[in-house]
Amino acid sequence: MGKGRLEAFSDGVLAIIITIMVLEMKVPHGDSLSALRPLLPVFLSYVLSFVYLGIYWNNHHHMLHVTQHVSGKVLWANLHLLFWLALVPFVTAWMGENHFSAAPTALYGVVLLMAAIAYWILQRTIIATEGPHSLLATAVGRDIKGKISPLLYAVAIPSAFFEQWIAGGLYVLVALLWLIPDRRIERKLGERKP
Amino acid sequence: MGKGRLEAFSDGVLAIIITIMVLEMKVPHGDSLSALRPLLPVFLSYVLSFVYLGIYWNNHHHMLHVTQHVSGKVLWANLHLLFWLALVPFVTAWMGENHFSAAPTALYGVVLLMAAIAYWILQRTIIATEGPHSLLATAVGRDIKGKISPLLYAVAIPSAFFEQWIAGGLYVLVALLWLIPDRRIERKLGERKP
Amino acid sequence: MGKGRLEAFSDGVLAIIITIMVLEMKVPHGDSLSALRPLLPVFLSYVLSFVYLGIYWNNHHHMLHVTQHVSGKVLWANLHLLFWLALVPFVTAWMGENHFSAAPTALYGVVLLMAAIAYWILQRTIIATEGPHSLLATAVGRDIKGKISPLLYAVAIPSAFFEQWIAGGLYVLVALLWLIPDRRIERKLGERKP
Amino acid sequence: MGKGRLEAFSDGVLAIIITIMVLEMKVPHGDSLSALRPLLPVFLSYVLSFVYLGIYWNNHHHMLHVTQHVSGKVLWANLHLLFWLALVPFVTAWMGENHFSAAPTALYGVVLLMAAIAYWILQRTIIATEGPHSLLATAVGRDIKGKISPLLYAVAIPSAFFEQWIAGGLYVLVALLWLIPDRRIERKLGERKP
Repeated sequence: MGKGRLEAFSDGVLAIIITIMVLEMKVPHGDSLSALRPLLPVFLSYVLSFVYLGIYWNNHHHMLHVTQHVSGKVLWANLHLLFWLALVPFVTAWMGENHFSAAPTALYGVVLLMAAIAYWILQRTIIATEGPHSLLATAVGRDIKGKISPLLYAVAIPSAFFEQWIAGGLYVLVALLWLIPDRRIERKLGERKP
Repeated sequence: MGKGRLEAFSDGVLAIIITIMVLEMKVPHGDSLSALRPLLPVFLSYVLSFVYLGIYWNNHHHMLHVTQHVSGKVLWANLHLLFWLALVPFVTAWMGENHFSAAPTALYGVVLLMAAIAYWILQRTIIATEGPHSLLATAVGRDIKGKISPLLYAVAIPSAFFEQWIAGGLYVLVALLWLIPDRRIERKLGERKP
Repeated sequence: MGKGRLEAFSDGVLAIIITIMVLEMKVPHGDSLSALRPLLPVFLSYVLSFVYLGIYWNNHHHMLHVTQHVSGKVLWANLHLLFWLALVPFVTAWMGENHFSAAPTALYGVVLLMAAIAYWILQRTIIATEGPHSLLATAVGRDIKGKISPLLYAVAIPSAFFEQWIAGGLYVLVALLWLIPDRRIERKLGERKP
Repeated sequence: MGKGRLEAFSDGVLAIIITIMVLEMKVPHGDSLSALRPLLPVFLSYVLSFVYLGIYWNNHHHMLHVTQHVSGKVLWANLHLLFWLALVPFVTAWMGENHFSAAPTALYGVVLLMAAIAYWILQRTIIATEGPHSLLATAVGRDIKGKISPLLYAVAIPSAFFEQWIAGGLYVLVALLWLIPDRRIERKLGERKP
């Protein structure tokens, strides 16, 4: 079963999610530069989510690049990931419009955590299909970043109710952690090149 | 005539439909967790529709995978299916916002029923082009799930006016029925593999 | 220069346009079936526009299928067509919300007329690149439907100010005229098959 | 690493951006032609942005056509460009709704400037991967248009606060400058043809 349509569908959904977030930025009523100021937290949360969705697209791209077989289970694990990513614009807008207040900031972390878990399930599902000696399995290896991220989200979520900026800082930290493209797979591909 | 553009266009429309539903979830005004409570029925109806659209994408994917020829009639039968699926976000929002009350819940079933009929017409149109001994025709076989689903919708629609949870339960039941990926086609493909 | 990306981009834009129209259908406030009644003209105008956009996608699909070379001019002629088609949801909503009153119904025709002219320009641009003996040139032939449609729109636009149903009827008539898939190209392809 | 998904994702985002702008055109309340008059500046700014996004899609298309390798850095440089282009509908609506007043018109220029810089970074990143003797490097050459455009934006932005029509005129001028498809790459490709 070809992976082409899985990639095309995921690209479509991710492209829409990323662009839908812009729609959440309501055009201000005044026409002065100061009318833009209330939009600043919305804009910052939009930038953060844009980077997160960019990371997901990037890693998804790398992961499927080394995938050979796509089973029915993989299709559903992928839809499950897209479901949580599709909630990102909602929590981004809620967090931005409420200036990173407690509950919205915590919920933002919950959606990120669920997306991270969904990505891990997708990865496991593909490796289960491809086998433990597949390109993806060896490339992922011990998957340290993939294990640290959920832990950091789990710390960030309750901390949002005490000191919201710890949560915000942790979200930025995880994003920076992943912003570096997944060299593991690129390296593995390099090694295998004849 | 290539099926590539038909798949790409369908993927695009389905990706947009699935993501548009998120837009229907209006960001709440308060910033407390309790502000999310009124959104719960909207969220639940969104999850149900997400699963339904995932099922349609999945089965559409399988069906076109074993399709060889795409005629003008198939293009229109496919557009007809997409028309009914494009109405899913509308009825999902109406049903969710009105807490699964009678008329919206019934209309939700009507759209699901029309989509099921449209899918059946598309399947018939492709089989008519491919011939009765084609891979698709043999894979579909007696198509028991495809025949039971419209019956269950037909029961659910009037029951929404008496006991709305019977209708809701039947919609969930049909979704579960289909959540299992269409092994028939996968099996057929396996058999035909050299 | 490959035509793959031109097709992919056009499919994307058309898929979005078709689905955006659904967003124009605002979820009604009441939860009774009678709350749906005011939506009927919006729904009818949506069905008409869906059929029109389906026709454009279909014919675009056929036209590019027999196109071999895509020049810079073709890219812009295609964008010009997409520009007018992107205005269809706007005029559809305006016409539907005002129950097919004079000015909106006339403007709907203007957008259809401009789209028809843009399609004709795109066709001419491709034929100019491909040559007068190309598959497309011979398939298009005298292009009777392509010449009648703008004439009918030109009659419909002013008539909307006198008797709106003449205009509406003419829009439906042109749609029915085109609903029949473009057999000319399919036939030509059939002839050329070895 | 294949460039197919990069092109598909970019096409998706650009298609959505171009079409989202239409959504900003709110359907007027009246049903007379005069009800459309307040929409005229919005429509004009929409046409300008449509042309700009068309130019970006066109040039992006040409640039990736002569690109062979896509690295992780290129993926991020591309996302960076898409980020600024995704802000175009927002500034287009703000500028149009405020009849090209000072601050919105200046901000429109800022987003165009950032997009131009992002495009230049993407071009540099690809050339750094492909090498100084690559098809793209020789095709781009001295890149006079790419150097003049940011200068003109830099003049337009402050001038919006003194005489808004100078800024507007400069935006139109740059668009006209680029509307001519990038013949450099087409010419280079022609030369290299056997």
